[in-house]
Amino acid sequence: MNVLVTYDVNTETKAGRRRLRQVATVCKDYGQRVQFSVFECRVEEAAYEEMRHRLMRTLNPKEDSLRIYRLPFPREKHVEVYGLDRYTSFDDPLVF
Amino acid sequence: MNVLVTYDVNTETKAGRRRLRQVATVCKDYGQRVQFSVFECRVEEAAYEEMRHRLMRTLNPKEDSLRIYRLPFPREKHVEVYGLDRYTSFDDPLVF
Repeated sequence: MNVLVTYDVNTETKAGRRRLRQVATVCKDYGQRVQFSVFECRVEEAAYEEMRHRLMRTLNPKEDSLRIYRLPFPREKHVEVYGLDRYTSFDDPLVF
Repeated sequence: MNVLVTYDVNTETKAGRRRLRQVATVCKDYGQRVQFSVFECRVEEAAYEEMRHRLMRTLNPKEDSLRIYRLPFPREKHVEVYGLDRYTSFDDPLVF
């Protein structure tokens, strides 16, 4: 499944700035950063649950906001991008 | 149609900070802010095109990033929210 993870973390405190780093670190395990606090992830159900739990354990629900959108297939038909684009298609051949 | 607008604007310059304000102002005409640079909009095709053009005119494609995702119906089945949630359902009765 394709999911979009977006988050706002309150960075007024040192703890908040740490949470912001940790959230990005978690998301990197499951997908790619397409904007500063937006990740696109392609995950199976089990990995999705694992990611969700790790994110919920990391965030402070009283100060932060996490939104996870399930995107329809095929991804390309449902997203339009303008300007800078960090996305690398999961389907493109990896060149080493 | 339900769309999700996410953006990163380069705010290192005064012009960038102005663009950031302008992008939010445009998005507010079509939907609601759910996170700092994430808006959920419910628009018809014509309004969608209008929003898209206004956003593309506002942003600097060399410095900024805009992503627009078409979300499937019903919205509630495809989004999970944790922590702070600014969203007000378009379907809830407006109380004046």
